[in-house]
Amino acid sequence: MKIDGRPYRSLWHEEKVVKFIDQRKLPYTFEIFTAKTINDVAFAIKEMVVRGAPAIGAAAAYGMALGEQESDKSAALLRSTRPTAYDLFYAVEYMTKAIDQSENAFDAASIYIESIIDRCKKIGENGEKLIKDTMTILTHCNAGALATVDYGTALAPLRMAHEKQKSIFVFADETRPRLQGLLTAWELFQEGIPHALIVDNAAGYFMRKKEIDLVIVGADRIAKNGDFANKIGTYEKAVCAKENDIPFYVAAPASTFDPNLEDGTKIVIEERERQELTEIHGKTIMPDWISVKNPAFDITPQKYVTGYITENGIQKK
Amino acid sequence: MKIDGRPYRSLWHEEKVVKFIDQRKLPYTFEIFTAKTINDVAFAIKEMVVRGAPAIGAAAAYGMALGEQESDKSAALLRSTRPTAYDLFYAVEYMTKAIDQSENAFDAASIYIESIIDRCKKIGENGEKLIKDTMTILTHCNAGALATVDYGTALAPLRMAHEKQKSIFVFADETRPRLQGLLTAWELFQEGIPHALIVDNAAGYFMRKKEIDLVIVGADRIAKNGDFANKIGTYEKAVCAKENDIPFYVAAPASTFDPNLEDGTKIVIEERERQELTEIHGKTIMPDWISVKNPAFDITPQKYVTGYITENGIQKK
Repeated sequence: MKIDGRPYRSLWHEEKVVKFIDQRKLPYTFEIFTAKTINDVAFAIKEMVVRGAPAIGAAAAYGMALGEQESDKSAALLRSTRPTAYDLFYAVEYMTKAIDQSENAFDAASIYIESIIDRCKKIGENGEKLIKDTMTILTHCNAGALATVDYGTALAPLRMAHEKQKSIFVFADETRPRLQGLLTAWELFQEGIPHALIVDNAAGYFMRKKEIDLVIVGADRIAKNGDFANKIGTYEKAVCAKENDIPFYVAAPASTFDPNLEDGTKIVIEERERQELTEIHGKTIMPDWISVKNPAFDITPQKYVTGYITENGIQKK
Repeated sequence: MKIDGRPYRSLWHEEKVVKFIDQRKLPYTFEIFTAKTINDVAFAIKEMVVRGAPAIGAAAAYGMALGEQESDKSAALLRSTRPTAYDLFYAVEYMTKAIDQSENAFDAASIYIESIIDRCKKIGENGEKLIKDTMTILTHCNAGALATVDYGTALAPLRMAHEKQKSIFVFADETRPRLQGLLTAWELFQEGIPHALIVDNAAGYFMRKKEIDLVIVGADRIAKNGDFANKIGTYEKAVCAKENDIPFYVAAPASTFDPNLEDGTKIVIEERERQELTEIHGKTIMPDWISVKNPAFDITPQKYVTGYITENGIQKK
C-alpha cells in the first residue's frame, strides 16, 4: 500500500526488530510501533496495534522469530493473546516446526508473510476482472492492506483496477460499532481512489438508486457450502444487494474455507463488550444506563453470494 | 410518557409560558427549556430543542399563541425555522385562522395539541392488537412521545402493550448518523419496557435468528400507493424483514398520507451536512480529510409493508 506516496506494509521487520503501523492511532495519526521482544509483539496483538486475521498471523510469525530461544514459551504466550484467531494458531504452528528444524526463524517468517502478500495480490488480479470502468463498488468493514500485510482481500481488486487506470468510485460503510470503515477510507485516501464514507444505514439507499454496481466484502470463515461469517452488517448488505440484482462477491484466501464446517449454522457468534457501542476511540457517547446487545459478526448464507474471489480464481456457486 | 415515574409531555404550556423537554440534552441530562416569547419558540424549533414533525407542529401552535399580537410577523418567523416541516406550516395556518376569528389563542393551540395526542393514543390502541405476549419488536429512529407530544407513533403500540401487562422486548436501532435510537432507549427505559440498543448493522442478524417477531417504524410522508419516506436505514430493515417473513408495519397519523403524491419516486431526499457523521454530540470522531455522503431519509416501497397503523385502524395494502 502507499502512504504519503511511499510503499508500506502493515508490519515488517528490520534486522531483529518488528515494526507495525499502529492501527490504534489510525486514521487520526500515523505512528510506527516498534517491537524488540516477543512480549512487545504479544502486546501489539492483544491491544490491537495490529488487527485482521492475516496480519495477526504475520505478527505471530515475527513474534516466534523474536522468541525462538524459548519457542514453547513463545508459542504459549502468542496463543493466549487472541484466542479465536485461526491464522495466529496456524502461524505459531508453522514457526514451531521451522524452529524445530533449525531453519533461520526470520527467513521462515518472511516466507510465511510473502505467501500472504502473494495470495492477496492474486486475489486482486482475479477480482480486478470483475471491475469495469466507471463502476461504483460498495465494501463493508476493512478488508484492506492494514488487515493483511499488503493489498488486502476485498480492497485488492479495487487497488488493481485503480492501478490499471479504471475510473472507479468506492462507498465504504462506516461499520459500526468499531468504525473500521475509517481504515478503509484512509487506505483509499492514501492511494487516491475516489470514495465516500457512508453510515451503514445508507448502503441500501444507494443500492436502490442503482448507484452501486458491485459489492465486495472479506470473510472471517467460509463453510464448505459457501455460507460465511464476516463483520456484523454484512448479511444486511448481501440481502439488499440480491434484492437489487447487484453482484455480491466475497474476497478471501482459499485457506478461509474451513473443510470441517458443513455450513454456517455451526458458527458461534461472539457477543462483545458494551463499550464498543458506548465509546468511540475512548470518548463516551452514550449514557451509563443504556442497555445494549453487540454481536460482532453475522452469517451470510451462500444464496446471496455471486462468487468467491480467491488466489485461485473466481469460484461461482 | 412517564419520566422518573411522573407523567410528562414533550412540550406543554403553563399560563403564558411554553415548556419543552430539551431534546438537545437527552439522553444525557433531563432539562426543561422555557419559552416566554415567540422568539424563544422559534429558537427551540430551529435549534432542535424540539424535534419530530408533530411536536414541531405543536410548538408552532404555542408559538403563534405567544405571538398573537402580531400574528403575520409571528407566522413568517415560525415558517422560516424549519423550511421542510409540513406540520409546522399546517399549525401556523390553523392558528392564523383561529386568531383572525378572535378565538382564545392558547385554547386554540390546546385543541390542536390534544388532537395530536388523541391520534397517537388511537394509533397505540390499534397497533397494540398486533402485539402478542412475549413478542420482540424492532423499531428504527425515534417515533416516540418526544417526537409527537405524547405516546408517539411507532412507540405508542409498545406503550399500550406494556400497560396491558403483555411481556415484550424491544430492539432499538441506534440510527446513525444522529443516534435517535438513544431517545427511543431513553423513553423505553423511563417506562420500564425491556429493551436493548443495537447498531443498525445488527438488525438483520437478529431477524435472521428469528429473535424479532415484528417491526414497527414511523413515517415522515406516505404516498398514495403506500411508498413512504422515513429515516435513512428504514429501507434496509424493511427488505430484511420481508426476506425473513417478519411483519413490517408503519405507524403514522392519517394526515401523513399525502394525497398529492402518487408514489415514492417524487420524494426528494435531503443530503445533510458532513458533521452529522463526523461529530457525535459535538465531539469530533472522524478526521478532517474524511469524504462523506449523508442522505437523511430513504424511500421504502409499499411492497415491503404489511400494513399501516393510523388513528382510523390498520390498513393492509
